[in-house]
Amino acid sequence: MGKVAAIIGCGVIGGGWAARFALMGWEVRIFDPDPETRFRVERVMADARRSLPGLVDAAMPEEGPVITFQSLEAAVGAADWIQESLPERLELKREIYGRIQSRVGGRVTIASSTSGFRPSELAKEARYPDAILVAHPFNPVYLLPLVELVPMEAVSDERVEAARTVLSGIGMYPLLLRREIDAHVADRLLEAVWREALWLVKDGVATTEEVDDAIRYGFGLRWAQMGLFETYRIAGGEAGMRHFIEQFGPALKWPWSRLIDVPELTPEFAGMIAEQSDAQSGARSVRELEGIRDGNLVALMRALKARGRGVGRILRQTEMELNDRNGAVLDYSDISEIGAPIETVNQAVPLDWTDYNGHMNEAKYLQVFGDATDRFMRIVGCDADYVASGGSYFTAETHIRHLCEVHAGARIRVSTVCLEGRGRKMHLFHELWNDGRVCASGEHVLVHVSLKTRRPSKPSARISRRLGTIEAAHAALPRPYGVGRYVGAPR
Amino acid sequence: MGKVAAIIGCGVIGGGWAARFALMGWEVRIFDPDPETRFRVERVMADARRSLPGLVDAAMPEEGPVITFQSLEAAVGAADWIQESLPERLELKREIYGRIQSRVGGRVTIASSTSGFRPSELAKEARYPDAILVAHPFNPVYLLPLVELVPMEAVSDERVEAARTVLSGIGMYPLLLRREIDAHVADRLLEAVWREALWLVKDGVATTEEVDDAIRYGFGLRWAQMGLFETYRIAGGEAGMRHFIEQFGPALKWPWSRLIDVPELTPEFAGMIAEQSDAQSGARSVRELEGIRDGNLVALMRALKARGRGVGRILRQTEMELNDRNGAVLDYSDISEIGAPIETVNQAVPLDWTDYNGHMNEAKYLQVFGDATDRFMRIVGCDADYVASGGSYFTAETHIRHLCEVHAGARIRVSTVCLEGRGRKMHLFHELWNDGRVCASGEHVLVHVSLKTRRPSKPSARISRRLGTIEAAHAALPRPYGVGRYVGAPR
Repeated sequence: MGKVAAIIGCGVIGGGWAARFALMGWEVRIFDPDPETRFRVERVMADARRSLPGLVDAAMPEEGPVITFQSLEAAVGAADWIQESLPERLELKREIYGRIQSRVGGRVTIASSTSGFRPSELAKEARYPDAILVAHPFNPVYLLPLVELVPMEAVSDERVEAARTVLSGIGMYPLLLRREIDAHVADRLLEAVWREALWLVKDGVATTEEVDDAIRYGFGLRWAQMGLFETYRIAGGEAGMRHFIEQFGPALKWPWSRLIDVPELTPEFAGMIAEQSDAQSGARSVRELEGIRDGNLVALMRALKARGRGVGRILRQTEMELNDRNGAVLDYSDISEIGAPIETVNQAVPLDWTDYNGHMNEAKYLQVFGDATDRFMRIVGCDADYVASGGSYFTAETHIRHLCEVHAGARIRVSTVCLEGRGRKMHLFHELWNDGRVCASGEHVLVHVSLKTRRPSKPSARISRRLGTIEAAHAALPRPYGVGRYVGAPR
Repeated sequence: MGKVAAIIGCGVIGGGWAARFALMGWEVRIFDPDPETRFRVERVMADARRSLPGLVDAAMPEEGPVITFQSLEAAVGAADWIQESLPERLELKREIYGRIQSRVGGRVTIASSTSGFRPSELAKEARYPDAILVAHPFNPVYLLPLVELVPMEAVSDERVEAARTVLSGIGMYPLLLRREIDAHVADRLLEAVWREALWLVKDGVATTEEVDDAIRYGFGLRWAQMGLFETYRIAGGEAGMRHFIEQFGPALKWPWSRLIDVPELTPEFAGMIAEQSDAQSGARSVRELEGIRDGNLVALMRALKARGRGVGRILRQTEMELNDRNGAVLDYSDISEIGAPIETVNQAVPLDWTDYNGHMNEAKYLQVFGDATDRFMRIVGCDADYVASGGSYFTAETHIRHLCEVHAGARIRVSTVCLEGRGRKMHLFHELWNDGRVCASGEHVLVHVSLKTRRPSKPSARISRRLGTIEAAHAALPRPYGVGRYVGAPR
């Protein structure tokens, strides 16, 4: 790619941006006068390396370099994108924008991570106000895809479109706001809840932990997939949203009439919250909590990816684009010259695939081999359209050898040999590679079936032909070690 | 169990209660004058049967009968728990409580599903006010565990404790409120967000779909696992919650100062929301959306169960209690008389285990066999404590035969034979049963390892002894068909 992102201000948010850009293949140039910056970035990078690559089942681009600069002007000089994540002080931000624009002019977009300011406030004194917009991300920036993209009116459509392309290109979901307002959209919602939650704690109705329980054991699970309006649409029944508003509007009004002022954050009240929070989470350091959070996020996001819903739609999109872009998994539209095993998987081991033995769980090996089989099926022509037309392959028999351990974050590849592909039968042998070694093999016999009768049937002529071509080409390869083994056979 | 729950008022919420109670083994008696009730309950029951049993990896109790009654008094007569889910009309609720208490006195607890009223309001004119409390659930009641339990002060500790036991016993998480307030806790938070979201739509900042995206691609994923305060604790860094309040308190205050009044729900505004919601979700019926939601919830909740976090803690607790209670998976503390294959799995196939071929995905077979192996390991003494002490078994080799299809919701059992258990080796043969047939077999060789050196090592004397006992007992069994098969061997 060769694209360069300048990260100006590199705390938790800036560090998260740096990690996301670098892992998606950008060169990252950092400016932050804090001497701890390098150490902090390394830590965030390590967290991101553990969790981000395993979100999608695709090979990541080669990680870009992360370089710290002592001078703001030097850091932004060659940048294609400038992300500002400074403290929320308007004067400071404006001053830095002035210095940046003196160096790069109005060509490069400066995106602010601000959670509160409107872009027109940020750009007020700027020389090129139309080069400044808000791109407000959510922590952890390297995992959560949401970014609120807020241009003021003067910003050209081309610049907005280019910003969307940059942000989508690093796996994010740019939510373009129709109007600029204080605190954008998500933080408006968050602050409404925050204010209400503070009252609940202050009035002794619930502790901080009980408020959290009220969220995560109930509506938090609904919101993670559907959000607010779609959830309420369901509550309204088939009569739809208008019915819901009519039915629940009046009832919902009752509590609205009170407690809308702000509880004063006195030292006593701050102390009370801190104590309750310590009682709730104090047994773990924030570092440990971050690790737990990231593991949970990977598990939740992959669960939704498997279903293609909510955030899973974005992950699938990213996966597709990565596969298109890096060409690591080839197209194989022309299979006439296949003379080698076929690469059917190339991805990282997700963070949540580890079991109590501290390595990739055995069931995940079959998941990877199943994905490899799916990929091979698509190569021979048994794709989603073919399945929709009523034909598919079912696995009849599997043999797996575990040869060495694989851990979360490891880059794995699967190479596949077709041992037989005649009639209704497809006999495949997968080898799972990590770090130059075969760590496992999977031998599978599949049978072509009619999805209507659920009985064995002949595949299409096209599939038979393509399978035959690959089988003939692979017959010339040395027979892989382990074919035909039974469980417990001597080595 | 023989416990009886009376469900008074049986719309979406009442139906959800009925389904949860029945699936957890209670007899359910319904009173609702609406002639559609029976049909509606059957539909909710069908949805619940698909999704609830697969949340936990344990055998569910036998489903209780669901009986509709034409008379309120007859429905509540023999009840151990009365759940009222009538429309939110105070007079109606009070009148019904009067009739119920004339029949059952003050012995049986009446729990109201009200989302708005305080228990003291509900109980004001009651003969036995201390028998009335609020148990406010969340839709879908058969999946989400949160229930806000709100007693007024006069209610005895014994009654509150008994209510907690009932609700925990059907897999819920009773959140006991410290004080009664309008709309309890969760709906306070929800309404704060709802009000803010309505403004965003009304002011043209975002559409209903964009508001939903702002939630589910960002903080919704955080809230599903940690809620609000623990998430902010992380944002505050190691300095803790006090630091967060000090740092972000002032910044968060800015938007608080505006938009705290209520947008008027004019017909025009209601129409605007309805139109946007149609554009967002109108391509699918509410019925379809419910199916999508339930599948997503099962996937999210199981993802958290695998990690033992958030709602996963509650599911694990339920799983343990079900296993204890139904005795379907035996204790095997005394293995001296094992003369038959050992039942190592007894559960339903989760809703999210289905793949594009419309049946349980192949990788899930290995997950089930892996669970069966784990269970067998615990039986011979290789439990969590033993693993913590540094020993475990790693799978070296696996062979799976797929004999017939299994679908979501199917009750599956695994029976396990130990073929060999000497030295470092453990050779197991699992058969997966559904509906009286063997649907798959799994043959596995495992090797005992030291978790420090990651090399083969001898198991403890206790494990060797127990394995030897089982191996000797199982040697007398007929050798299962399929042992020693290789992939593609003739039948």
